[in-house]
This record gives sequence, C-alpha cells and structure tokens, in this order.
Amino acid sequence: MHLADLPTPALLLDAAKMRANIARMNAAVSQHGVQLRPHLKTAKSTAIAREMTAGWSGAVTVSTLKEAEEFAAAGYRDILYAVGIAPGKLDQAAKLVARGVNLTLILDSVAAAEAVAAHAVRWPVLIEVDSDGRRAGVAPGNAEQLVAIGQALSAGAELHGVMTHRGGSYAAAGPDQLPEHAEAERRAAVTAAGTLRAAGFPCPVVSVGSTPTALFARNLTGVTEVRAGVYVFNDLVTAGLGVCGTEDVAISVATSVIGHQPERGWVLIDAGWMALSGDKGRGDQGYGMVAAEPDLIVVSANQEHGILARRDGGPIDHHRYPIGTQLRILPNHACATAAQHDRYHVLEEDGLVQVWPRFGGW
Amino acid sequence: MHLADLPTPALLLDAAKMRANIARMNAAVSQHGVQLRPHLKTAKSTAIAREMTAGWSGAVTVSTLKEAEEFAAAGYRDILYAVGIAPGKLDQAAKLVARGVNLTLILDSVAAAEAVAAHAVRWPVLIEVDSDGRRAGVAPGNAEQLVAIGQALSAGAELHGVMTHRGGSYAAAGPDQLPEHAEAERRAAVTAAGTLRAAGFPCPVVSVGSTPTALFARNLTGVTEVRAGVYVFNDLVTAGLGVCGTEDVAISVATSVIGHQPERGWVLIDAGWMALSGDKGRGDQGYGMVAAEPDLIVVSANQEHGILARRDGGPIDHHRYPIGTQLRILPNHACATAAQHDRYHVLEEDGLVQVWPRFGGW
Repeated sequence: MHLADLPTPALLLDAAKMRANIARMNAAVSQHGVQLRPHLKTAKSTAIAREMTAGWSGAVTVSTLKEAEEFAAAGYRDILYAVGIAPGKLDQAAKLVARGVNLTLILDSVAAAEAVAAHAVRWPVLIEVDSDGRRAGVAPGNAEQLVAIGQALSAGAELHGVMTHRGGSYAAAGPDQLPEHAEAERRAAVTAAGTLRAAGFPCPVVSVGSTPTALFARNLTGVTEVRAGVYVFNDLVTAGLGVCGTEDVAISVATSVIGHQPERGWVLIDAGWMALSGDKGRGDQGYGMVAAEPDLIVVSANQEHGILARRDGGPIDHHRYPIGTQLRILPNHACATAAQHDRYHVLEEDGLVQVWPRFGGW
Repeated sequence: MHLADLPTPALLLDAAKMRANIARMNAAVSQHGVQLRPHLKTAKSTAIAREMTAGWSGAVTVSTLKEAEEFAAAGYRDILYAVGIAPGKLDQAAKLVARGVNLTLILDSVAAAEAVAAHAVRWPVLIEVDSDGRRAGVAPGNAEQLVAIGQALSAGAELHGVMTHRGGSYAAAGPDQLPEHAEAERRAAVTAAGTLRAAGFPCPVVSVGSTPTALFARNLTGVTEVRAGVYVFNDLVTAGLGVCGTEDVAISVATSVIGHQPERGWVLIDAGWMALSGDKGRGDQGYGMVAAEPDLIVVSANQEHGILARRDGGPIDHHRYPIGTQLRILPNHACATAAQHDRYHVLEEDGLVQVWPRFGGW
C-alpha cells in the first residue's frame, strides 16, 4: 500500500524516526550503566515493543493489566505494572503469574500493602515514591509511612524496592531545567530506598524515569533502572519542551481537506478530536500542527472535523490546499493520539506502508 | 454479572435513563410532525441504534464511513453521512450503494460537487449550510454559491436538499436562549432551500439539528427532518447548558480508589484520560464529576490516573473512600468518553449487567 492510497484519517508511523528516537534513548540510558525498562503504554504494540526492548533484558513497564496480558502473550516475562494496584484487580493479575510472568506491583499505602500481602500470590512490590507532589506516592522523607508499608508487606509479599516518576519534568520551562528534574527524581528514589534499607528492607530495585529526565540525567548513582515511553514517538509536547525537534516526531495523523471557509481563512479537514484526541498539550499548538508547515495548526476540533488556521490569525491561502489534499498533523501528545487508533500505518524507508495492530482497553 | 464485579475502569450505561432520554427526544420531535434521523456517532452501537430508531422510519445519520458500514450491516438502508465528503472516499462509499444502501452525502463547495457528479454513482446529496459561523457550510444568503453547487451537481448527482447543524447552540448561556438558536438553525436551512427552489432545484429535504435545538425548537415550519445524537446519553455539557439534569446522564465510568494524598486532600482513582477522554467540556467540571457527589470532580488526569478533589478546593475526607472503593464518574462529553471504550456495561432495571459492543475507527 502507498501513502496516497490510505483512507483518512489514519495514524502514520515513520519507522526511521522511531528507530532514531529509540537509539537516542538507548544511548542515553546505557551511558549510566543502568537498565532500561521501556514503558509500553504509549505504543501498545508488540511490534514496537520488540524495537524498544532490543538489546535490553526484556523488562517492560505497563499501565494496565490488559497491556500486561498482551505483552505476556507476546513472550515478555518481566513486567512492572506501574499504576497503584486496586485490590479488586489481584485475581486478574494472578492469572499472569500462573502463566509464568514475573509481574511486579506498585503501591503507596499501608491499606494496599495489607491487601496485597493477604492475597494468595506472594507478590513482588515496589513502593511508589512521590518526587514532584503531582500525583501518587509516599513523600521520600516520610520514613514512618515507608517503613509501615514495608512491614505490612512482610506478612506475605516481597518488597523489591522503590519507584518514582517525575511527571513534573514535563512542566519544565526548557531543556536547561531537565538535569535538575532528573536529579530531583533520582534523589527522591534513592532517599526512600536508603530509609527502607536502614530499617532492614534490602530494596535491590531503584526505578526512576520519564522521557525528559531519562534523556537529560547527568548522574544516576543509586538508580538501577530507568523507565520511559513517549520517547519512542515524541510529540509536540516533548518538542515544545526542547527534548527533541518537531522533525523527530515519528507519528502523525494523515488527513484530507474537505472544505474551505475563505471568509474566515480556514481549511477544514477530516481529522477532529476522534483522530487527534482532545489533548491540547502545552496549549500553543491547538489540536496539532501540520507537519513541515509550522504556521498551520488545528485551532478547533469537533468529532470528525478539524479547522486549520494560521497560527498568526491571518487567512490561509486555501488555493494551496484544494479539496482532497492530503496533509499530516503532528500530535500534541503521542500517547493520547495513538490511543484513538487501532493500527499504525508504518512508513518504511522503501516508501511502502505496512499495518501494525495496536490494542486498547483494560 | 453484577456491578461490583466489574473490573475498573469500565463504561456503564443506565438503560432506564437512556430510554427516558430517547422518549423525551421522540416526543419533542413528534410534536412538530417531522422525522427524526438519529445521529449514531455518539453511541456507535447497533443495540443502541435500535432503541433510538424504534418508532421512526429507520433513517439514521453517521459521521464516518465505518459507521455507515456497521449500521448497513445491521440492516439500516437510509443513511446520511454528515461530514463533508472527501473525493478520495467515494469508491469506499460506493460499496455501500452496491449493497443496496441509500447513502446521502453532504458538501459545501463547487469542487466537491464536481468530484461527486463525476463519480460513477449518481449520489444523493445535501448541500451543507452554515447556521452559526463555526465550522462548515455555505452561508445561507450566498445564493451564488448555492446555485453554483446545484448546477455542478446536475452533471451527475441528485440534489436532494440542504442540511445544517448549529453546534453553536452548545455555547448558549442557558436554556432560555435555545429556542432562539433553534430558530436561527431553521431559518438558515429554510432560506437556503428557498434560494435553491427559486433557481429551479426542488430541495425536498430540509434537515436540521443538534440535541439542544431539537429539544427546544418552538417552530420547525419548512423543516422535514431533525438530527440529534448526544441526547441518548446526555452529559455534563448538556446538563450544564440546562438541557437536562446531571441525574439524566445515562453513561458513567466505573472506577476504583487506588490511593490517597491526605496532605493535598486528594483521592486517586484508576480512571485517567484514557477512560474519561481529555475533553474538559464547559471547563467547570474538571475531567468529570462523581455521580451523586457534585462536590467531587476529577481535577487532573494522566493516562490511567485521575485525581479527585473537592470543587471548593477543600480536602476530601479520604476515610470515606478507602482503597478499592468503587465510584462512578459522569462524563463531560458523552461522545468523547464513550469513544475511549469498546463496550457498554448495560445496567438493566433488574440490576444485572449486560455487555453491548461498541465499535470505533474509520
């Protein structure tokens, strides 16, 4: 299949850009002598998982049990389920253990630790540590809570260590601030691990990561593994943060021009929020930017309609974009845009398009 | 299956509320003596389509060819594809015609009309009219453009009439303004049809609609059919507009409590933007509101994490929501939230849960 024959809207993946993004992360993490445990929630594709784990141990990170099940079926055996466990999910998770998967859970409360310890499986567990005050996790200085969770787990689970994710790194003003975010992430995890070790819990695993901190960390002393996911594609958010350029964004949404509103200077396309997602990213790119035409953004999106306008508010010369013209829209947030699609149309270097399936759900 | 056994997150549909919403729309449209052509883009379910079309002619509206194909396979034969046609889609659309479907297209330009007229199928077409300046369509007073499109179609298509959608009705300050929006929508369509008739094009079809205008129209003189879709579920946007109450919202996302951040007054849940969508609706409900607890909204959402906080900024008493507690989140925008799921867990009046599949894609 050739690109021009694709029905629109369709999710495109530029394989060469993806491979360059993967190579860059591999090199960044390798220089610290730690393991990479790719987060597969962005891609949700076994073909892409294989590219992300090539050369590493095969350890992966997931955000749902559905991902754990799909990647287990593809042969992955070392899976970190990196969302605080709801006790009601333990029986479903136990089915993976019965199939030989080493599934590690995370939690940040004594109540969850008690539920996990009381379950029939002797679960490997990481305690989630809060490194930015933005979501979940025990404060790294809260020794009492860390030790209480360790003690609750002793009744019937295995405390393997700690993990943290500094999502706040995405709020950095620019790349100069990212080494500092990486250091704050490292320090939170290493501090919590030190507290647990001092209380007699060995904590062999110290797991950190986000795409910005993984790429910009200067020192990972005390860390054993790095998790990251969005680097595989990159997006307008990572580009806006200065982590990459817009030319490094490996996915886009192919769309067709379906109309013009010359009096308002608009071009209408058949990619709305259903194809692009409703994610507005950093707030400066609308619902996405036209690839290689940084003046044009999707200023408004309905379910199956997008409105292209010039970033500066001036009119688009619509004669340049006749009805039926194909354009590609770069996504604000690769995880969200890819989630709106059930397949990748993969552009290989020979110009041909392959289809790689993508799964969703829970 | 019972509600408490559902793995979370999961999309729930309260069948009784859905049926009451459908009955209300049926009554509103019936009083004007016009046809209802339900828009199936919100539900994307053949089971729900049957509920929405019961008692009507079976005419439906869709937003993608995938919907047209799915509903054609379920037996629907009168389908309006209500997004401006991209000429590249005509061959795919023609396969439905070959299967006996009466598929009507819409367009708003001479270029699209020429492409449609030149295609092998003699397409039935409605000209899209712009009734609010917000998206597509010919201005209702632009006689020159309307007639030029009609003439272009004469070469090989059938002009059946006009259609418009006043999406701007969702921006009304309250229900008092909705009759005025409905009248503006009606006037735009009837004016354009009059212009075309005066130029010798019969225009038997005059199609209008949105959920707010369909429910609040006082006079539909000259209109032949009404389209609406979101009424089947309702959401926090239609409730915020005063079209319904939050108790009328028929879908919700079941979620489990996975953590607490007592110092910040937060409760963490396993429904993030992947389960809720990134749609922020009217901007006053975060990513959704806890059903029957209007003080609690999802103030922040990551892929699989939601953060519940009090609307007034005060702390949540987290002892009321222990780890594992099930809650239901009402969606800002039913179309967007439902699109994140591949099935409805339907609560029937006997308390049992059935699963109805939902499709996606293009």
